[in-house]
Amino acid sequence: MAEDRTELSELGEFGLIERLSQGIVVQNDTSKMGIGDDAAVIDSGDHLTLLSTDMLLEGVHFDLSYVPLPHLGYKSIAVNVSDIAAMNGTPKQVTVSVGLSNRFSLEAIEALYQGINAAAKDFKVDVVGGDTTSSNSGLVISVSVLGTAEKEKEVYRNGAKANDIICATGDLGAAFVGLQVLEREKQTFLANPEMQPQLDKYQYIVQRQLKPIARMDIIHELASLDVQPTSMIDISDGLASELLHLTGQSSLGATIYEDKLPIDKQTYDTAVEFGLDPITCVLNGGEDYELLFTIDQEHHAKLEKHPDIHFIGHMQSADKGVNLLTKQENVVAITAQGWNHLK
Amino acid sequence: MAEDRTELSELGEFGLIERLSQGIVVQNDTSKMGIGDDAAVIDSGDHLTLLSTDMLLEGVHFDLSYVPLPHLGYKSIAVNVSDIAAMNGTPKQVTVSVGLSNRFSLEAIEALYQGINAAAKDFKVDVVGGDTTSSNSGLVISVSVLGTAEKEKEVYRNGAKANDIICATGDLGAAFVGLQVLEREKQTFLANPEMQPQLDKYQYIVQRQLKPIARMDIIHELASLDVQPTSMIDISDGLASELLHLTGQSSLGATIYEDKLPIDKQTYDTAVEFGLDPITCVLNGGEDYELLFTIDQEHHAKLEKHPDIHFIGHMQSADKGVNLLTKQENVVAITAQGWNHLK
Repeated sequence: MAEDRTELSELGEFGLIERLSQGIVVQNDTSKMGIGDDAAVIDSGDHLTLLSTDMLLEGVHFDLSYVPLPHLGYKSIAVNVSDIAAMNGTPKQVTVSVGLSNRFSLEAIEALYQGINAAAKDFKVDVVGGDTTSSNSGLVISVSVLGTAEKEKEVYRNGAKANDIICATGDLGAAFVGLQVLEREKQTFLANPEMQPQLDKYQYIVQRQLKPIARMDIIHELASLDVQPTSMIDISDGLASELLHLTGQSSLGATIYEDKLPIDKQTYDTAVEFGLDPITCVLNGGEDYELLFTIDQEHHAKLEKHPDIHFIGHMQSADKGVNLLTKQENVVAITAQGWNHLK
Repeated sequence: MAEDRTELSELGEFGLIERLSQGIVVQNDTSKMGIGDDAAVIDSGDHLTLLSTDMLLEGVHFDLSYVPLPHLGYKSIAVNVSDIAAMNGTPKQVTVSVGLSNRFSLEAIEALYQGINAAAKDFKVDVVGGDTTSSNSGLVISVSVLGTAEKEKEVYRNGAKANDIICATGDLGAAFVGLQVLEREKQTFLANPEMQPQLDKYQYIVQRQLKPIARMDIIHELASLDVQPTSMIDISDGLASELLHLTGQSSLGATIYEDKLPIDKQTYDTAVEFGLDPITCVLNGGEDYELLFTIDQEHHAKLEKHPDIHFIGHMQSADKGVNLLTKQENVVAITAQGWNHLK
């Protein structure tokens, strides 16, 4: 096409998005927030409409040699619902487009939809449309989700203030370590197809990888406690990457504490077994689909006893940087080493 | 996965959609219309929100050896806008997800987005989000579109009544015949790369294939003439297939007249040159993205002099069938031979 050639790997995913965003002009005054948050925000009169989309490609986002089709269907809905949760919204409708090669039978597609329908039920969303086509290459799944939020209740990435408490839900790193287990089992199977997979002791972390849960429960609890986060994002690319989004878009720095980071024992033990640093898995492992958010200190008491919300640090002025304080009280600058699907 | 194996080609695209739709349960009372029309219809209080999505896969929907990237970007938006037009709505926002292999440079992606942004400007929609990822195989483009419609002004496929006039916009068959020209030029080029493409005399039909226009102009004109169609669909799979959707969902039959079918002279001449029956191209060629709709006879006078709306037949009771009356006054039953992406 062009004489110049700039490789996409030079820019990375976020660089590409930034570059492409520059050419976009907003023409409709109902388009309140476009690219740059977990979902677009559209003014629908008495409420806001939220819109987000995620595409899953075989060989990039999933490997059918160890991902069962019902789990894949479930995950394709959950990751989209998670984007609506991260805006403090409620998901309502999804469209599901699927590109299929002829190696898929009707029964296989029905298995995929079994998971899609189970997730739709769990997250109370309706499958209202989509597109079904053949694919010359692998399986392609593209889901878009519509949600709603009350006006003034939507939460962006850019609203954090200095001294806000940084909260993370659930535990982190499990989905990444679970993926390592699945990859090892695949290699073992390829080397010796007689071997049965040994997944029993890794059940929790494998489940975290295969069937992530969008944290709508947390969104409902925050509402019932009358706690509105000042900023929020879902943890799809790893804690470090997401924290850098919140601090960057809020023009702040942050300190998080190693001893406060939530990690499950199975994640920790398995990381060590694989020769991985557990804290690196927490910081840079992706696909946990937990929520990272900030709250004003006035809400401290309401959440401090919550079993599944962890205070991991605080926001600070930008000049103090974005740092991890280790157990040895060393200050380590946090850099993004999360997923980069273009590398 | 399963012991039974039913091939997707046995069901076809519409059979698969019908089968998958059976497992879907609607839980939100704002989901007014799900699968089965050009877009989903969602109750947004004082208005309706419309949602539709289309996926384009390299090697299935486009061939980059003759489709320029800006045209492809334009088309990916236009085909989605066309779905909103077919509901009598106005498109407002789109999300664009792109799966890219590393053979694409930044410059190539910018060329794609040049077309996306041009279409966004032409159809007054905002690009508010998307997903950018690598692809191990070809280029994947998935677009979702949000639109709005006034309550009671939305038009479904199932609202036609007997004796309604059947209207088609523009001309038909051109995109299909244009595709034949592009395919022939590709073969000529592969046989002899020194040959320059000979496209001058096919300019109109090639343009119709490469850069379809969604007929929002017709939607605005119908509104200004106070004509609300009783049923409507966009012609993406061919006139015959779309007419069968309108008649089937409205529980009616129809007669259309061969001598009323709109065909451009270049389409006609080129079809003959390729040994194709021009009427078959009109009936079964896809991708024109014109509108097919029905109106009550009371609106006859308002539209009869419109240069770009053609009265091609009328609806009738289901027992009379769906027929073409030829110039020789033969009655031929219309069957769907449109695109079936799963065959």
